Amino acid sequence: MSDVQLVMNAGSSSLKFAAYMAKGDKPVLKGKVSGIRRAPEFSATGAQPDALGELTADTTHDEMVQRVLGWLTAHPEFGDVTAVGHRVVHGGRNFSKPVLVTDYVLAQLTELEPLAPSHQPHNLAAIRAVRGWKADLPQVACFDTGFHASQPKLNRMFGLPRKLTDQGVIRYGFHGLSYEYIARILPRHLGENADGRVVVAHLGNGASMCAMTGRRSVATTMAFSALDGLVMGRRCGSLDPGVLLYLQQGLGMTIGQIETLLYKESGLLGVSGVSNAMQLLQDSPAPEASEAIELFCLRAAQELARMLPCIGGLDALVFTAGIGENSARVRSGICAHLGWLGVSLSSDANAAGEEMISRPESSVQVCVLPTDEESVIVGHMHDIVG
Amino acid sequence: MSDVQLVMNAGSSSLKFAAYMAKGDKPVLKGKVSGIRRAPEFSATGAQPDALGELTADTTHDEMVQRVLGWLTAHPEFGDVTAVGHRVVHGGRNFSKPVLVTDYVLAQLTELEPLAPSHQPHNLAAIRAVRGWKADLPQVACFDTGFHASQPKLNRMFGLPRKLTDQGVIRYGFHGLSYEYIARILPRHLGENADGRVVVAHLGNGASMCAMTGRRSVATTMAFSALDGLVMGRRCGSLDPGVLLYLQQGLGMTIGQIETLLYKESGLLGVSGVSNAMQLLQDSPAPEASEAIELFCLRAAQELARMLPCIGGLDALVFTAGIGENSARVRSGICAHLGWLGVSLSSDANAAGEEMISRPESSVQVCVLPTDEESVIVGHMHDIVG
Repeated sequence: MSDVQLVMNAGSSSLKFAAYMAKGDKPVLKGKVSGIRRAPEFSATGAQPDALGELTADTTHDEMVQRVLGWLTAHPEFGDVTAVGHRVVHGGRNFSKPVLVTDYVLAQLTELEPLAPSHQPHNLAAIRAVRGWKADLPQVACFDTGFHASQPKLNRMFGLPRKLTDQGVIRYGFHGLSYEYIARILPRHLGENADGRVVVAHLGNGASMCAMTGRRSVATTMAFSALDGLVMGRRCGSLDPGVLLYLQQGLGMTIGQIETLLYKESGLLGVSGVSNAMQLLQDSPAPEASEAIELFCLRAAQELARMLPCIGGLDALVFTAGIGENSARVRSGICAHLGWLGVSLSSDANAAGEEMISRPESSVQVCVLPTDEESVIVGHMHDIVG
Repeated sequence: MSDVQLVMNAGSSSLKFAAYMAKGDKPVLKGKVSGIRRAPEFSATGAQPDALGELTADTTHDEMVQRVLGWLTAHPEFGDVTAVGHRVVHGGRNFSKPVLVTDYVLAQLTELEPLAPSHQPHNLAAIRAVRGWKADLPQVACFDTGFHASQPKLNRMFGLPRKLTDQGVIRYGFHGLSYEYIARILPRHLGENADGRVVVAHLGNGASMCAMTGRRSVATTMAFSALDGLVMGRRCGSLDPGVLLYLQQGLGMTIGQIETLLYKESGLLGVSGVSNAMQLLQDSPAPEASEAIELFCLRAAQELARMLPCIGGLDALVFTAGIGENSARVRSGICAHLGWLGVSLSSDANAAGEEMISRPESSVQVCVLPTDEESVIVGHMHDIVG
């Protein structure tokens, strides 16, 4: 039986996993549980949808990981797992590079849970579940914050008292594994511009943008938490801090209610009143759905522009992740706000889903590149555990 | 004895006043109390510094207004006050134009106090004090939010649930009286560009920017409260909402402590640890002071860029208010981040404090224009009370 390395990506409402041959690059197995805590659905290479047993809104993240591990145990044909690599949202200031998980590391990462309350606990629960499954299996944590460690200090600072900055209340940024993947493949797609002034727009249910020069992160839209920046599926994005004071002092909301409001009830869902899913909004006849899409696009253009002083202009714009890869309407909606930068989209190429969607005369190259966070994780695992 | 109209501008730490001849345009009297609640100082046309009696850190805003009115009563040579116009920070959604103050209006404006806790109560206290002084005197309220009522709906929306938007949790914007003044005089200074794509940077102890086309507000950096946008003297500016959750949930701060932190202890003061005053920072040898100035300039450039998708580029940039009018270092620091937009500053003209400080070949005109909120207020008073 062959050896495989397993990658786990435990998100806020999904659990993705993939198995890679030890020296290979393509997954021999891919699987996913989506809709955790709402309407869970399972799919995986060669598996029946009910292979994990009955899944309900009550099935916890932890239980979901247990069932996936059980399913893997029952299917030795996929190989013998020799190591597990995890996407971990927050590495804080101490972990900017992938690291072998030890008791010490796990304790440190647990302390960061308040910085990413809707992601970090699930990431760490998956690590603990794997420990319970096979205690000696080497596990590697790869951080969404890591790619942004290259940013200049000023780009990471808030206008807060120095003491808080020194304590780590800074702009960390997220989606780093996705940006790392895109940065790696840029030369194959952009030519000379790959090392120029590039903005990558990772637009999924969570959404952010990263401004790069020399394929290194210089600025990004998400900050201390995964709330900041773009309007997202259920998250508000940038918000006047005075609003939070008012929600408590003026409207009497509790901090717990506000957390739920900003993480779960805002964004596309809150603005539209229809759905957090871009595809459903695009199909909806409700004017509120259109308005939500328009706000998403305007805000994305604004957040992009906000980073340009940090990289001194724009040579190329790359769309990736669910919405970025699949929504021609969103891509064109964002680019419509960027004509003043010389962005000129080919509506035919955009509608056809081609890779290069800018016109030849556009002074900014615009393209669509699928991301692959799992392949970045498996790469780091190889480097660390061989 | 001649009739005069009085203008009062009751800020968070200052009280400015001026008296205008009924049909005139230049003030016959200008006065100011600065440093309220810290180290108050009084100055006014032809007055001794101790003319208001002993002023201490315990002297309240309200008492300060009373003393100024008493001083005016004792000096009938300045004229007989026939009307008083006030700068009022927040007009909410019901008041976008200047309005005669009635009991109903005052009650409505009082309800808006939670939206601008460090300004609105002082503005309204001044109105009440004048009522106590001369009950029948007509008073006019002019709103800092009013100029921004022309903004498209999308530019004023947060990514929050529609119900909150409908309840008025939107981007109001402030410094509208200053922007209204600058908009009015732009044609005399910018020629054709006056009606083009203009950003006005009102940089004082409070600081914001307004993007205009056709001399109407299209976007602005302050939002629901006066906290958002640029780094200010003591205020944080834009801040990831997740930081506020963390300050409470992670660090155990109370909402009152957080309000004080964000309004009073952040910004230039918090970052530098030296002062909230730009001039003192510029004179300071501390590297933290330089860093605070650099952060101020970078963030200003970023906030400017963030508005450009709303006006489709930039024809002219106008600096105004204390820092904007007086700090060549800040103007050049901000413009240094905007070269990619075609901004090219003349360092000689900038250092010499000339009105037009961009080079002839700059594709963006950059100029410095002193603002005059009081003259806008007196103009509105004339329109309303004659």
